[in-house]
Amino acid sequence: MGGENLMRENKVGRMVPQEGNGRMLIPYGDQKPLGHHTAPRTRSCGEFPPSGDKTVADLKTALKNAGLRDGMVFSTHHHFRNGDFVAAQVFQAAQELDVKNLIWFPSAVFPCHEPLLKYIENGVIHHIEGSLNGPVGTFASAGKMPGLAVLRSHGSRYRTLQDGELHVDIAVIAAPECDMFGNMTGARGPSACGVLGFAVADAQYANHVIAVTDSLVPFPAAPWQIPGNLVDQVVRLDQIGDPAQIVSGTTQITRSPERLLIAEFAMKFVIAAGIFKDGWSFQAGAGGTSLAFTIFARDEMRKQNVTASYIRGGSTKYLVEMLEEGLTGSILDGQTFDLDGVRSVRDNPRHIMTSPFNSYNYHGKGNVASMLDCVLLGATEVDTEFNANVVSHSDGQMLHGIGGWQDALFSKCTILAVPTFRNRVPIIRDRLTTFCGPGELIDVIVTERGIAINPLRQDLYDAVEGSNLPIRPLAYLKQQAEDLCGGAPEPQAPGTRPVGLVTWVDGTILDTLYQTS
Amino acid sequence: MGGENLMRENKVGRMVPQEGNGRMLIPYGDQKPLGHHTAPRTRSCGEFPPSGDKTVADLKTALKNAGLRDGMVFSTHHHFRNGDFVAAQVFQAAQELDVKNLIWFPSAVFPCHEPLLKYIENGVIHHIEGSLNGPVGTFASAGKMPGLAVLRSHGSRYRTLQDGELHVDIAVIAAPECDMFGNMTGARGPSACGVLGFAVADAQYANHVIAVTDSLVPFPAAPWQIPGNLVDQVVRLDQIGDPAQIVSGTTQITRSPERLLIAEFAMKFVIAAGIFKDGWSFQAGAGGTSLAFTIFARDEMRKQNVTASYIRGGSTKYLVEMLEEGLTGSILDGQTFDLDGVRSVRDNPRHIMTSPFNSYNYHGKGNVASMLDCVLLGATEVDTEFNANVVSHSDGQMLHGIGGWQDALFSKCTILAVPTFRNRVPIIRDRLTTFCGPGELIDVIVTERGIAINPLRQDLYDAVEGSNLPIRPLAYLKQQAEDLCGGAPEPQAPGTRPVGLVTWVDGTILDTLYQTS
Repeated sequence: MGGENLMRENKVGRMVPQEGNGRMLIPYGDQKPLGHHTAPRTRSCGEFPPSGDKTVADLKTALKNAGLRDGMVFSTHHHFRNGDFVAAQVFQAAQELDVKNLIWFPSAVFPCHEPLLKYIENGVIHHIEGSLNGPVGTFASAGKMPGLAVLRSHGSRYRTLQDGELHVDIAVIAAPECDMFGNMTGARGPSACGVLGFAVADAQYANHVIAVTDSLVPFPAAPWQIPGNLVDQVVRLDQIGDPAQIVSGTTQITRSPERLLIAEFAMKFVIAAGIFKDGWSFQAGAGGTSLAFTIFARDEMRKQNVTASYIRGGSTKYLVEMLEEGLTGSILDGQTFDLDGVRSVRDNPRHIMTSPFNSYNYHGKGNVASMLDCVLLGATEVDTEFNANVVSHSDGQMLHGIGGWQDALFSKCTILAVPTFRNRVPIIRDRLTTFCGPGELIDVIVTERGIAINPLRQDLYDAVEGSNLPIRPLAYLKQQAEDLCGGAPEPQAPGTRPVGLVTWVDGTILDTLYQTS
Repeated sequence: MGGENLMRENKVGRMVPQEGNGRMLIPYGDQKPLGHHTAPRTRSCGEFPPSGDKTVADLKTALKNAGLRDGMVFSTHHHFRNGDFVAAQVFQAAQELDVKNLIWFPSAVFPCHEPLLKYIENGVIHHIEGSLNGPVGTFASAGKMPGLAVLRSHGSRYRTLQDGELHVDIAVIAAPECDMFGNMTGARGPSACGVLGFAVADAQYANHVIAVTDSLVPFPAAPWQIPGNLVDQVVRLDQIGDPAQIVSGTTQITRSPERLLIAEFAMKFVIAAGIFKDGWSFQAGAGGTSLAFTIFARDEMRKQNVTASYIRGGSTKYLVEMLEEGLTGSILDGQTFDLDGVRSVRDNPRHIMTSPFNSYNYHGKGNVASMLDCVLLGATEVDTEFNANVVSHSDGQMLHGIGGWQDALFSKCTILAVPTFRNRVPIIRDRLTTFCGPGELIDVIVTERGIAINPLRQDLYDAVEGSNLPIRPLAYLKQQAEDLCGGAPEPQAPGTRPVGLVTWVDGTILDTLYQTS
């Protein structure tokens, strides 16, 4: 971005560029016109072998057949989370084929992708369009990546492809079980990792789709999640991923007494507010506090003989147990977080494979997220108007991906479960370091020192009146933390060089991330 | 169509119009350009209730909300076959709302739709775009319908919507089980009818989708075949159909000794040619001869301890028994023909719901039809070059729909099972009354008097050499029938007024149907 790229202030007071990665950008709050879906190129059976056999010798052959050339947009997916072996093989092959300036459009990155930074340094990859975190986020925040990191939620990534905001030239989809025609499932095979939902958009809208598998089975690989009718080529690899690594990062129950207390407050709030009742629905994700909330919910459901209509996963063994015990009618699963989840989604017809299309796509005819009675999420910061940050700490570095966080804010009661401070830095602030979600969608903030209800939700105030819950003004909780930490946190020094954009679910620009070192 | 609409001769010697129903037409054999898929209008969750509740009071309200107006294209589907109650209610409501000149785009019509002809007579419906048969076919063949009947195969109907050759304004989808959000399945509910595959294209590509159900269940109706994310409104009706009537028309095993002989010849051919072997696949449909073939295949598989990889349905109790007995790995089901099929597709994870997208769409990246080892189909006529007719008898009247017949011709070995004559009219002719399928795709013609192999398939000749099968030249079979019937059939008198078009799987025009009385 040159100096002539003017910054404009958006509706929530953030300066955002007018242009990024060669595309015009629309500030959050401005109307984004709704046009038509992208129109994939029409193909003909005449171009494909009547036998249905689309297998080719290796990845390099497949990439050559796909017409690989400089500057193409490539996508891969994170069903293996920190156990992904595919992206590394894709860019190794691309390097051997001597192409440059690829754009990588992953559904998420993990620490296992750190070795891929060399492809940015040597020019094979121009930039990554995605929610960056860990070592890749650190790299981008240091200004080492040409192009902007465009951070999108899971739902927004689906929407981006559907709306044609970005066209993927070649999608490479890791398929734990696949047949010669390209029918794919993640529920079976030696590397079974569960739901393949994040790849559904790419299968539908990419120009060219390559399935890679380490378990090529006879046709038909049935039931499949992604049909072979969307696939151009099939490649067998030695190993596509390590499913043991899907249990990584955030999927452990917290042992912190403070976070257990937060989870307990959240559960008590849900009960007091009347949200917890027969037929309720919730989503709590795989973070430590969220898992603790799930356990509390399970225990309370057993105790009060309450069942859920459905629970939205990320599925874990805890959700699977609840399904098997009859505590929930079904699991609507977008991402499988452990091997119990993999087994269940394979065997249990009430454990439903979904994709961000079903759950999160904002440019659709409704989605599941807004129907949930209650969602428990984390945050890195909140401000006094209930706006929140999930991608950076106070240093402004890209730390976490957005994931489904923005999409899930649309639930009927969105609860952020956060400590009042981390490492002696208060997390309730006057101004967010990075603006990721508007406060009007955030209903409750639960901390270890009390629960703040968004003044927009008088109904929730009324519902919990008379309970013994520590309902407190957000300003009070802020003050408590500042008293303990020795004052309000220093505001981040104004950045000068944009390195990333935080987009909203509709594709407008919420905030800018700046080079931090 | 006025007198100025020039007719042109296509590649197979048929005169076809250059224009029909306001669209330019491309003769079969001419290159139809492959463009892009149609691009549905982008919608936003902001237009839909966050609760997910899309139910409205009644069908008239739904049609008004959908912006119903004169000339719109309406679609309905034939999962209930002769037990459909939905189309009648749709056009009754449209009449009450005083709209005219609707175009009806059904996936198929049945005798139960005869009462709807009054809506053509009174102008509510302008014409039907579809494969017509029974009383509706007779009506159209008599020249009583404004506009042309455009006959398409199931796969071509999917393609038509995908490619935007026709845009459906309002699709009304009968859902035996549905939730408020529009998630739908045909596998459950009091009116369960099995697979809803024919409605998938409409759900994806229609401007407005209305689900109608007589079993509205709590969210989520899971597993669903069609996701609510594609649905605009949900309407509860007293009854959407009579599932007992899906067992209608063609789904009885033949008792005719002659047709049993044809089925037996076909089975013996498949064995002699080496097609019948462990891991084979086939499709045989629901006609009487086809069902007899299926029974013979089952018995032979038991005897020889042979199993199929998969069988493509229309599913019947015979296919279900074979699945449950382990004689086939799976059923890929496009249409459920009896209540055993309904039960199986609900309960058996190896009984897979598909749609014409998976099985038949010619403008895709391959489909299942071409992968089948063997397909057994019927025909009304064949000519000496193995071309065939499936929609009319020698009187040229629209008698049968194309169904999946054209799509299935692409199998590795397509067998037409036909008697040499019907009602003393030979069915092997010099020139077809109506041209529906090119002989280059038809490999074998099995009659009660012998088996003719297409000269293009020398490999099949070689494979059955030395068998005791009555392999005969097609001309010989033709002569036999003519000797028995007292000569060749009279050629149809040349028609003058086109009333219908037979389209090919790619949308080009194969033949013209003319007014017959």
